[in-house]
Order: sequence, then structure tokens, then C-alpha cells
Amino acid sequence: MSHSQYLACRVGHDDLSRFIQQALAAAGADTASQQAVSRALVTASLMGTDSHGLRLLPHYLQALQGGRINGSPEMRFEQRLAATGVLDADNGLGHLAGYRAMEHAAAMARQAGMGAVAVGHSSHFGAAGCYALAAAEQGLIGMAFCNSDPFVLLHGSQAPFHGTNPIAFAAPVENDDPYLLDMATSAVPWNRVQQYAAIDRPLPPDIAADGNGTTTTDAKRVEALLPLGGGSFGFKGAGLAGMVEVLSSTLSNMVHGFHLLPMGGPDMHTPRGVGHFFLVMHPDAFAGQGEFAQRMGDYLRDLRGMASSAEAKVLAPGDREWQTRRERRAEGIPLDHAQRDAYRRIAEQYRVEPLSEG
Amino acid sequence: MSHSQYLACRVGHDDLSRFIQQALAAAGADTASQQAVSRALVTASLMGTDSHGLRLLPHYLQALQGGRINGSPEMRFEQRLAATGVLDADNGLGHLAGYRAMEHAAAMARQAGMGAVAVGHSSHFGAAGCYALAAAEQGLIGMAFCNSDPFVLLHGSQAPFHGTNPIAFAAPVENDDPYLLDMATSAVPWNRVQQYAAIDRPLPPDIAADGNGTTTTDAKRVEALLPLGGGSFGFKGAGLAGMVEVLSSTLSNMVHGFHLLPMGGPDMHTPRGVGHFFLVMHPDAFAGQGEFAQRMGDYLRDLRGMASSAEAKVLAPGDREWQTRRERRAEGIPLDHAQRDAYRRIAEQYRVEPLSEG
Repeated sequence: MSHSQYLACRVGHDDLSRFIQQALAAAGADTASQQAVSRALVTASLMGTDSHGLRLLPHYLQALQGGRINGSPEMRFEQRLAATGVLDADNGLGHLAGYRAMEHAAAMARQAGMGAVAVGHSSHFGAAGCYALAAAEQGLIGMAFCNSDPFVLLHGSQAPFHGTNPIAFAAPVENDDPYLLDMATSAVPWNRVQQYAAIDRPLPPDIAADGNGTTTTDAKRVEALLPLGGGSFGFKGAGLAGMVEVLSSTLSNMVHGFHLLPMGGPDMHTPRGVGHFFLVMHPDAFAGQGEFAQRMGDYLRDLRGMASSAEAKVLAPGDREWQTRRERRAEGIPLDHAQRDAYRRIAEQYRVEPLSEG
Repeated sequence: MSHSQYLACRVGHDDLSRFIQQALAAAGADTASQQAVSRALVTASLMGTDSHGLRLLPHYLQALQGGRINGSPEMRFEQRLAATGVLDADNGLGHLAGYRAMEHAAAMARQAGMGAVAVGHSSHFGAAGCYALAAAEQGLIGMAFCNSDPFVLLHGSQAPFHGTNPIAFAAPVENDDPYLLDMATSAVPWNRVQQYAAIDRPLPPDIAADGNGTTTTDAKRVEALLPLGGGSFGFKGAGLAGMVEVLSSTLSNMVHGFHLLPMGGPDMHTPRGVGHFFLVMHPDAFAGQGEFAQRMGDYLRDLRGMASSAEAKVLAPGDREWQTRRERRAEGIPLDHAQRDAYRRIAEQYRVEPLSEG
């Protein structure tokens, strides 16, 4: 089920960035918010993280228009101790909160070796990997966590409790793109279930459940995802989701994910109070000057040199993303028919110069 | 397959602690090392983490006698910045390195909000959860990571690359035992595979592989474990193992796990250079004074109140461990026949007063 079956057109990443910023401006977002959202969505779309890329723009526009998200937030950062601080995102766009928090965390890490920022009163921030990456691009180790509304069972629960609560980790590599892990703590992405439902293909066992919390391979009956580890070892994924929840919402004094309003609405007026947590470490505060990135290179050479059991090469976290980014920078970012139509409607509705479709 | 089938006797945790310390003393370990090892092993055995409890004493004695582990290390801590430091464990017992590193990390966290220590030239430290727990018992959030020799496939590799590289996370809860997650990043513990092999029971699919990296349900043919997420989503577990590896060995300037000598020998003379990473956060450096532990209580009440899809209650990470600890503090810690015999042999070999077997 390749993406090209659904390909409607391709767009250049600069043009996409321009379009996203103009549409957000028309929906009332300030310049800083426009830039942060376009940076995050274009980064995700270039890397092939299509679930968290350009697809999300219509949602953010709707949340801005409904008043759920504040397009001109006054985000307040309060440094607490040498390595910690809290950011009140004033119900603004999570992307701006994320990049701002990472800047503060990175500044603390340069001084104290570590920096962590708990973010409250925020909103959906797209792909967690974008913020971890922002640290790695400066030669720092970055981590990002976020809670979300309930979609994933606990190990053995009937109903969902945690969100897909992602963990992202990025680190610099000498003469190479960064190491980048960005994963949901659910057994399977919700998108994957939808893809299987669309073609009536049975799911692998033990990764998704029906409305009673009973595992099912019938994608059309799925109402919840199992935690990573599935039916037998889901206590691991549920525990990781819990760690993400505690870092994201408990440290930031937000409600935990079970009480979050659903991202998808129908209430597009009430702020959700999403929480994030960002952590930055300076590698030179542990290893010698510049040694870390060099040793990352050695580690990844060993990893990529492992013989594969299949035809595909063994990949490091990020390898697929950087390959996709090279391709999409050259060939453009693909839009499927639904996305192309949505972007055409946005162009009309917000009177924005349409994307140049190639 | 309950433990009681194999129960040979029970021992009191104080007597076990006494025995472990005396045996280690006889094998040349200094007082600080004796205390750290007995603290870690008794903690793990009381919690029911039997794979990382009293079972390991014979191994540590062997490594001390062979010279792999230094029983009287001069561990050197160097603080680098306000929130970071490195500990050279001088090839001593990993348990002493772990508790020492956590003390330094906790002291930094009280000052700077965060504290992290990369540990090098260390050895096997037992259960990672012990060190995270040491922070939570002081009202702090603790994390512990460790690399190990290769036993787990990459996603799609023919041969193992990472160890079972654990992640531990613990946090204080008001009027309750701490939240405690302690998990290997492999799909299944090696012990479980051995248990299945012993009774010729087929394994769940997609969690373990034969010598060619091909998934097998025949426990007797297993030579490697799959990463958490198994055949379809093992890139998640492999990525988590990689994060643990990078934190544990790359920051501490140690070789990464693929190059570690095997824990099990045969070389019991050469130090292995295991790396650990410990991170402590002060919750009050983010949330208000004492709010965090209270909010953890609220979160866990919601979690434990979720309806279960089976007969068992929905558990939070740590719930099973604290229940087991209550039982074992009252009834004693169980030893199977192999363990009882091993401890009797140790008593003779090292002229230690035997355990009082109940």
C-alpha cells in the first residue's frame, strides 16, 4: 500500500511553508506562531511523518477559529533553578511552545549541563521528534514528551486511559544527520488501523481492541489501541505511556490525559490544557569536548553494518527519515487527493495564494 | 507455572542481607560494596524481581574471585557543571556505583533541579529499578539506564546487537509506595524463554528468534530476543534500546554493548566496562511545593479505578512489586532448589553462617 497510489500532486517545501504561514495569519495567528507551526509541519512532512505533517493544518485552523487555540499568546517562561523552568503557553499553538521551551532548555543545558522545561496550558504540537531534533541540530541531546487524549488501553483495561503519549530522543552525530527516535507508546499507530480498515485487511493479532477492550484483528471494529508490547507485554508500553504522562502533565500541573478533551472536537472553543516536557543535555558536560558526536558515528557504523534477516538494510532511528527528506527536498512533498482538496479549500476560504501543484 | 512448585525454603530478608554481606566480605569486597549489593539484591528479591535478586550472588562472587570486579574500588566522582557529573567506578560492583551516582545526582537535583551522572568502568548492577527507587524514596524523580552484552536483535538484524538495556523510572506518591517502572527493552525476558523451554510450551509468536534471526515459537531453538514491539513494531524497542545505549555508554566513554564481554563468562578476569546513566529531577523545581506527589496520587486513583477486561485488577507500575514486598517481608523470600543449594555451597566455601531456612 504505497503512498504513490494516492498521490494527487507534489509541492515544494518552501511553497508549503509560505502557504501554511499565510493561512495561519489569515486565521489570526501571530508571526511567531506561524513560523513555529510551519517549521514543525514542514519538518514532519519532509521526513515522511505524514500523520503529523501538512495533514494537520486544517485542524489547527479550525481550533484557532473556534477559539480553542490562542493565536497571539503571551507565553511566560519562569526559570526555577539552574536547570529547570516552566512555560505557561497561554493556550497558544503547541509548536511555538515546543520550540520556545527547547530554546530555554538548551540555554540552561549550556550553562548547567542539563535543562528541562515543563510546559502547561498548551495544545497539540505535531510530531514530538521536531523538538528533540531542534536540540540535536545545535549539538545537544534532546528529548520531548507529550500527553494526549485517551486512545490506548492500559494493560488489561476495558477502556482507553492514556493517549499515544510519544517519546522522542535525538542526538548529534559527527558528519551525519542526527540520531532521531520518535515513537508513540501504543502498539500500532491509529493511522495504520485506518489503512487496514480501508482495504479490509486483518490486523496483526494483539495490537488493537474493540469497544469492550477485547483484542480484535478486524480493523473496522477497532475502538482502542493496545499499549506497545501488545496482549502479553503491554505493561511495558503502558508503563512508558505513564512515564510520559507523569512528565508531561503532572510536572506541569495540567490534568492528565484521561481528562483531556478530545483533540478532534466537537468542542473547538475550550482550551484543552495539553502538557509537554522537554529535556536537553549537553554531551560535553559528560564526555570530552566533541567526543560524543564522534562516538555516535562509531556506534551507528557498527549498527548499520549488522547483517539483515530480510532484503532491507538494518536501519538506525532516523535513517528512513533522512532518506525521505533528501527525496522530498528534491522531488517535493506528496499530497493525496484529500489533502490536495483540503488545501485548495483553505486557499479559497482564507484567500491565500494556492500551492503550486507539481 | 507458579513459583511455589519449585519452592525449597523461605528466608528472612535481614538474614539474607547478613548472608550476602558476609559472603561478599569473604570474597574480598569492602564494606561499602557489601552494603550496596545486599541492598540491591534484597530490594529486588523482596519486590519479586527474582531474575535480579538473590539469584545473582554466586555470579558476583565468581567475578570478584576471578578479578573481573574490584572489591575495593576507589570510585572517583567529578562534577562537571551544576547538573552533571561523571563517576569512574574503578571496575567495582555496579550496585555501589549506582547508589553513589544516585546520591550525587540527587544532591545536584536539590540545588539545580536536575542532576545526571554518567558512570563508566562499572559492572552489572542488578535491577535498574533499585536506583530509580532510591531517588523516589527521597521525594525525587529517578531514572536509571544500563547497557549490557548483546542479546537482542535490531529490527530485522540476523544477530543480536543491543543488550536487554533496561529503563527504570520512579516517582514519589503521597501516602503511598512510589510509582516504579523497570523494564527491559526486549520483547520478552530471557528467563521467560527458559521457563517455556523447560516445559516445552510454544512461545507467543514474534518475540524471539533462532540463530539466523528468524522468529520462532520453539523456546528450545531461541538464541536471541526480539526488541519490544516484536516482528512488526520492533523498531520501537530497538530505538529505545539505542537510547539507553547512547546514554549509558556513549556519554560515559565506554564501548557500546555490542563490544561488551559476555556477563556469563568464560572470562572472569577482564573488567567489562559496563556503563550506566542516572538522572534525578526535583519535582518542586517544576510544580509547587509537594504538589507533585499529591497529583501522582490523583493520577493513580484514576488509573487503578479503570474497569478490567479480565478478572485481574488493572495495576499501576509497582503495584505488583509492593504487594509482593508486603508478602515477602511477612513470610520470607522464597528460594527454589537450585538457589538453596547454591547458597548452601557458598556457606561452605566462604565459611559463612548458613541462611536460616524456613
